[in-house]
Amino acid sequence: MKRTLLTFFTLGFVLLFGSPATAQTLDSLPSWNDGKAKQSIFEFVAKVTGKGSPDFVPPAERIAVFDNDGTLWAEQPMYVEFLFALDRVMALAPQHPEWKDTEPYASLLKGDVKSALAGGRQSIVEIIMATHAGMTTAEFEQTVKDWIATAKHPTSKRPYTEMVYQPMLELLAYLRANDFKTFVVSGGDVEFMRPWTEKVYGIPPERVIGSNIKTKLEMQDGKPVLVRLPEFSFIDRKEDKPVAINQHIGRRPIAAFGNTDADLEMLQWATAGPGPGFALYVHHTDSGREWAYDRKSSIGSLDKGLDEAQAKGWTVVDMKQDWKIIYPHENR
Amino acid sequence: MKRTLLTFFTLGFVLLFGSPATAQTLDSLPSWNDGKAKQSIFEFVAKVTGKGSPDFVPPAERIAVFDNDGTLWAEQPMYVEFLFALDRVMALAPQHPEWKDTEPYASLLKGDVKSALAGGRQSIVEIIMATHAGMTTAEFEQTVKDWIATAKHPTSKRPYTEMVYQPMLELLAYLRANDFKTFVVSGGDVEFMRPWTEKVYGIPPERVIGSNIKTKLEMQDGKPVLVRLPEFSFIDRKEDKPVAINQHIGRRPIAAFGNTDADLEMLQWATAGPGPGFALYVHHTDSGREWAYDRKSSIGSLDKGLDEAQAKGWTVVDMKQDWKIIYPHENR
Repeated sequence: MKRTLLTFFTLGFVLLFGSPATAQTLDSLPSWNDGKAKQSIFEFVAKVTGKGSPDFVPPAERIAVFDNDGTLWAEQPMYVEFLFALDRVMALAPQHPEWKDTEPYASLLKGDVKSALAGGRQSIVEIIMATHAGMTTAEFEQTVKDWIATAKHPTSKRPYTEMVYQPMLELLAYLRANDFKTFVVSGGDVEFMRPWTEKVYGIPPERVIGSNIKTKLEMQDGKPVLVRLPEFSFIDRKEDKPVAINQHIGRRPIAAFGNTDADLEMLQWATAGPGPGFALYVHHTDSGREWAYDRKSSIGSLDKGLDEAQAKGWTVVDMKQDWKIIYPHENR
Repeated sequence: MKRTLLTFFTLGFVLLFGSPATAQTLDSLPSWNDGKAKQSIFEFVAKVTGKGSPDFVPPAERIAVFDNDGTLWAEQPMYVEFLFALDRVMALAPQHPEWKDTEPYASLLKGDVKSALAGGRQSIVEIIMATHAGMTTAEFEQTVKDWIATAKHPTSKRPYTEMVYQPMLELLAYLRANDFKTFVVSGGDVEFMRPWTEKVYGIPPERVIGSNIKTKLEMQDGKPVLVRLPEFSFIDRKEDKPVAINQHIGRRPIAAFGNTDADLEMLQWATAGPGPGFALYVHHTDSGREWAYDRKSSIGSLDKGLDEAQAKGWTVVDMKQDWKIIYPHENR
């Protein structure tokens, strides 16, 4: 009797939603509330994967690109990579006695981030280079691994790798289950992300794209090493996200996910091809469980992008309404 | 009776070479003569894939990188991409009446390549930029696709995509069957390779690394396009091959395949890790079926690399001795 009920139940789903092979019948996005956003994802995936669908896309061409900060993990009260840099300034200070009298370090060492950043972009670049360059790639990788394993988010006191969005983890897995290739396309230093993205997002290093600093091959003790130089070779944001995607992937994505105006060109690029294209903005609307910010935020500003999403009918996730939970630990 | 014989035969192979699950029992490299080169490949793959092997490497980390010109396809009498550029000069000449009186074009249009290249590197860069830049990435892709579908190799009169090495195609497939991720790492323009590598080598665009020219996002008729600018942003050879591998893949390869001194640093890089590493040089020794050249060749010079391969015990493929056939058409 139970078995018969189950069969009827399954048949009902199949009649309602199509083939049982498509993932939505089992709800691949359990942390998403039913609604327009979730439905738009299911519809897009069905459209590009369905056999005989006029919009069918072969698996090799199912490229999906995701911004990282604010799209896959929290970016408030400050970008995680910048918090890493601040920790590194503290850790490296004993080797740099001159920092006590030199800005922006002097202010940082007193805990006065605001004064340290009074110099604007130049101060930020200096802090990044002082903490991200001047070592081999292997040494930097180890530093990132050690830090990410122990550092805690300033307000939640949780590891940063637990400040990722559970609904987005489900989305990544759902797309991969439908033969999408998922990539990170972030403004962050690519070598700050690669040591942990495979474990946390299921995205291997070769599918992580980001900003780059120059490296140089040198011999150390008879072995080749790559030394990180204090100079950007590429900054991966705004109009340069499509440039990076083209250079790295060589194919136009058919789906793009972001949360700020710095992702707008990437979303435009993914939807400007001759075939189907899907664009989704994560809108930070939940001041209780996460943060609420958009048009006027100094971090993660979403202004032009919000207008364009509305004009073009892109999917906009209302975090407060659309997500049952935000972080994986809420499931435990 | 026949069946019994077959069983004994299979058992014999298993006893000789180990588990029937490892690919060499069925000879995955049928175009390779038995010998040291072939054996070294089988031994390396068995070592890194064998369960319980002290040198076991997880599939995610099985990265193999291949040079293209002279390693996967012929590079004589001249690099294929340069022959493409010469054809494009001819095709574009009607739109450039000034070329009749301007070097290096004037000489090229008279068929005098030697005089055209008298200006050395500067002339080559000028010819590359005149034929590879000044259009959108989509337009360039179509141009490459159209050309590669029809152009013929100057001596064999065969399509360039038939000038690939059958033994290397088998090697690529064999490595992928053993869960390796195979990448091209070439000095050629990445966008000259990507339109055909998936079909010819089974390597999708996102696993092709090469030299890059700058691109810029622009709006044309209300749609974003990437315009190719006449300037290199990266040249992928010698000490910059490890730089490109690190930037693109973010993991050290455990196997590297090349044929010239411009691949030497890549082979050194792949073998300088803490774990197992395999390096192989294709040595062009067959003046009858292909070409014979090494230390003093102006194209594809292999000099320092040959010495280092001998000193370090790397595999050196003697094309004449080690390869039963060179090109796929010899099988037909």
